[in-house]
Parts: sequence; structure tokens; C-alpha cells
Amino acid sequence: MTTSVQNIALQQVAEIFDQHIPFHNHLGLNIKHYDISGVEVEIIMKQELIGNIHHSILHGGVTATVLDVVGGLTAFAGLVASRDDWSVEELQQRLTTLGTIDLRVDYLRPGRGQIFTGTGSVIRAGNRVSVCRMELHNEQGTHIAFGTGTYMVG
Amino acid sequence: MTTSVQNIALQQVAEIFDQHIPFHNHLGLNIKHYDISGVEVEIIMKQELIGNIHHSILHGGVTATVLDVVGGLTAFAGLVASRDDWSVEELQQRLTTLGTIDLRVDYLRPGRGQIFTGTGSVIRAGNRVSVCRMELHNEQGTHIAFGTGTYMVG
Amino acid sequence: MTTSVQNIALQQVAEIFDQHIPFHNHLGLNIKHYDISGVEVEIIMKQELIGNIHHSILHGGVTATVLDVVGGLTAFAGLVASRDDWSVEELQQRLTTLGTIDLRVDYLRPGRGQIFTGTGSVIRAGNRVSVCRMELHNEQGTHIAFGTGTYMVG
Amino acid sequence: MTTSVQNIALQQVAEIFDQHIPFHNHLGLNIKHYDISGVEVEIIMKQELIGNIHHSILHGGVTATVLDVVGGLTAFAGLVASRDDWSVEELQQRLTTLGTIDLRVDYLRPGRGQIFTGTGSVIRAGNRVSVCRMELHNEQGTHIAFGTGTYMVG
Repeated sequence: MTTSVQNIALQQVAEIFDQHIPFHNHLGLNIKHYDISGVEVEIIMKQELIGNIHHSILHGGVTATVLDVVGGLTAFAGLVASRDDWSVEELQQRLTTLGTIDLRVDYLRPGRGQIFTGTGSVIRAGNRVSVCRMELHNEQGTHIAFGTGTYMVG
Repeated sequence: MTTSVQNIALQQVAEIFDQHIPFHNHLGLNIKHYDISGVEVEIIMKQELIGNIHHSILHGGVTATVLDVVGGLTAFAGLVASRDDWSVEELQQRLTTLGTIDLRVDYLRPGRGQIFTGTGSVIRAGNRVSVCRMELHNEQGTHIAFGTGTYMVG
Repeated sequence: MTTSVQNIALQQVAEIFDQHIPFHNHLGLNIKHYDISGVEVEIIMKQELIGNIHHSILHGGVTATVLDVVGGLTAFAGLVASRDDWSVEELQQRLTTLGTIDLRVDYLRPGRGQIFTGTGSVIRAGNRVSVCRMELHNEQGTHIAFGTGTYMVG
Repeated sequence: MTTSVQNIALQQVAEIFDQHIPFHNHLGLNIKHYDISGVEVEIIMKQELIGNIHHSILHGGVTATVLDVVGGLTAFAGLVASRDDWSVEELQQRLTTLGTIDLRVDYLRPGRGQIFTGTGSVIRAGNRVSVCRMELHNEQGTHIAFGTGTYMVG
């Protein structure tokens, strides 16, 4: 069962990541959905995100950014889900230590499309370190990239 | 010995990557130096690149972007250096196939600083695939991140 | 439709990998199944494969070995499946160039169990380079490790 | 300055890894040198370690194994070096939690040679997680492979 502390914490994190991180605003990155079951991060294609001038293809750095954001949020949701007796202060403290240790991106296909959506899941859950796998698809369901990331969560 | 075809090709690539890739302009990414011996990619800290609102820290997606650009340019320079009888057409053809297959980023320290510089070297040179290692430092020489990338070059 | 050239090629590869590679014999690694749809590599726990003396846990190097073998065989099966007009000579030539470019292993849980099975799938198929994802499970279905590998196939 | 507790701890670990891990004995893996400044792991080529029957080339799984062992020992030495007031009990406790979270291997050249030596260095030092880079060379100084690994150390 999801507690209100868990819900409130994730809603606050979603709001921060959606609205108060300058680089997310600069790219137009949106947190479409975030709760204990997972995250959905969306980015709409625009001229500024293009990496290839001949073809309108998303820059690989945008792909890496979305996958890394998805991985961090997925790892944090997994941590929040691991206990139902968190205090607000404990979760705020954990959020300050959230960070990427390493990230692998596998570029599968050129990033063609209008709307790109990143999703993820925890593959190794820990109290200090979590490992996640992430995916990026376009609006037609074409699979653009895979990610694997190791995150500090405490 | 560097031939004029090699020099011209790399100067053209440097100009494209420095001025004509929309996402590079959006971030303010500059190709400071590019010849057969290597590449230097620079990014100046600005508000829009921040990933952490409490501390002025570079977003990890910017780090990944710079390292990926460095890796691609390093792989291409290595290919150009591997023969001294390239035609202009051959190198233009090879440039169209240049792409990242996979990328690993190791985040070593928070991205504090004003000027970030990425450099790299080829660790596996091939006619089709090259593998590079990349580094990101700030203006004080602090080592922010390592990268390892596998690139299609033909 | 699977052609007889495809079938024969994969059966020969399975026999080589199962019986004629010294390190596979040294570990007791078996190719349980190999056709155009995928591969199943099995290893039976024995004293010599243990990495932790207090607990009977598979050494991480064995895990990496099985995942790498699975990845190479998966990449080659994908190549064979990509055309139905291979000659025997072409496939033999391709087999000589098969090799791992890079490999990532994510260790999810301690390698406890009696029978470990590795499986995989192609996530990026190419005529020169393929990328695969691999998994290792024990006989109870516990997921021990994930792998991601980039393979030269031509 | 190195304390006697640090020295004794690393000597005990070297002895365990050199003599009491079944898979290390099965491969013939030796800890040639281990102190606070680093580790040197050696493996002598023998028939059982071959991965390619036409050429006498080290199996990629052996390469991955040596690099992973080097990485773990390097991470632990870095932890031991981080404080000079460890008790014997604390270090024994830390050793039980030592484990690989993820490992990347970059295969640079075929593993030809008679004696292979693995070395490493810490690139991110932490009280819970450390990241290391590792290298494998043969007796002629040919660079066979690079590794990058993330290790749990507490």
C-alpha cells in the first residue's frame, strides 16, 4: 500500500524535476507520470534538439539526458517503495544524495519522431545503490535507445 | 605527415560541429581545437545547463553530451589519420556513417566550475568500428567525468 | 523460413562452442540449444567455479564468461537470420571475424544455485556490428545477472 | 603512512585471493603484488584458457575475470588507504561486503602471449561505492583490454 508520505515525496520530486531544474526547462523535458510504480519522461522534438542537420534526428546527448533522468527517478521511486515508514525528512535527505555513478547508453536506431518517451525499471535494488534499465521510444513505438545506470540512493 | 585532404576534412567537420548542429548551439558547445592529433571541446557554464538547483552543478546530461561529441570526433580523427590517401569524397561518405553505438559515462565528481573541457583518445582503432576514452575537466583541472564509447566509422 | 545452409552453419558453431573450445571444456560450459531463434548456454555448479569460500557462490568471472559466450552466439545467429542466401563459405568467413568489442555485466544477485542458464536477444542488428542483451538465471528462475555486449560480426 | 593494520589486512586478502578461491586456482590466477599502492594480478597462458582453437588466444572470459579481480582488489585497497585508524574487525566486515555491481570490458586486441598482467586504479573513491579502471597487458607490454568497474565496498 502506498502511504501519503510516499505519495507526497514523489509528487514533490516530480514537480522539482518537471519545473525547477534549469537544464530540463532548456530542453523541454516533462515528467508526465511519476509514482511508486514508475516514471514516464517526455520530450517533444524541436529544432534546438537536433543533432544531424541533414536529417531531423534527436542529438544523442538528448537521448542520454532523458535516459539518465528516467534512471535517477526510477531508482528513487524504488527506494521510496522499499519501506512504508519513511519520514518526510528522511526522504528529503535521501534525495540530496541521489546521483548517477555510471550510465551506459545503447543507441539502437536514429532518433526520428515528434514525441520521445523514456521509461525504466529497477534491476538491482539497494539501500545505498540501485541499478536501473531504461528505454526511449518515439510516438510510434519505435525503440530508439536502451540505458543501464547505477545510482547512489543513500 | 598530415595531408591537405586530411586537414581540410577535419576543419570542415570542426566547423559543422561548432556552428551547424542545433543542439551544440543550444548548449553553447565549442570545438576549440581539432586536428589529426585530437580534439578539445569546451562548454561554458551558464544558468540553463544547471542540473541541481541548490548547488550550481552541471547537469549530467551535459556531461554525457560533451563526452559523446568528443568521442565521435576522436574516432573520426583516428580514421582520417589511418590513411594518407583519402579522397574528399571518401571522407564525406565516412562522415555520414559516423555514429555512436554505445557510450559509458563514469561520473567522478560534481560538475562544479566555469569552463569544462573534453578531450579523448582512440583505444581501439578499426576501419568500421573504433573505441575511444574521453575525459571532462573543469578550468581548475578537476576531473569531472570519464567516458568510454564505441563508434561506427564506416 | 530457415534454410539448410543456415541450420548447418549454426549446428557446426554449436558443436565447436560446446566441444572444441578449451576454456568452455575447462568450465563445463554446454550449448544446450542453438538455432536461428536463439541460444541457451548452461553451466553446472562445481567446486572449481566458486568465487566465495564461505558461501558457495559462482565466481563473477564465470558469470561474465557465460554472458559473453551467449552474446557472441546470439549476435551470430542474428547475422545468419538476416539473409536466407548465405553460402557456407561466407558464413565460415563471418565466423572468423566474430568477436566481442565491449561487454557490460550487471551483477544483480549472488550466484547461488546448481544450474545456471544464459539466454540473449539482439537489440541492434547490423551487417558489421550487433548489440545484444543477455541474462543469467539459476534453476529456480532467480535472475543472477544481466549483460549488454557489442559484437563484431563482419 | 601505512599502518600495520592496513598492511596485515591487505596481506590476508592477497593470500585468500591467491590461494583460497577455487576459481582462481582453477585458472592459475596469481596475486603477484598487493599493497596500499595497488595490485598486480598475473595469469600464465595454458591450453585450458584458450578461446580460439585456430590461434592460441586467451578466452575473453579469462580477460573479464582477471579485470574483475583486479578491480575488486583495487577498490578494497583504496578503501583501506582512506583511513589509518581501521580496526581489524572493521576491515574484515568490509571485506564481506566487497562485490562487483557492474563491469565494462573493452577488448582492444586478441589475447596473444604467455604471461598476462592486470593492474588498476581507483577513479571514484567512496565509503560505500568505488569505481576503478583496469588494464590487461601481455609480457611484451601489448595492451589487451581495458576494464571499468563499480564496486560495493561497505
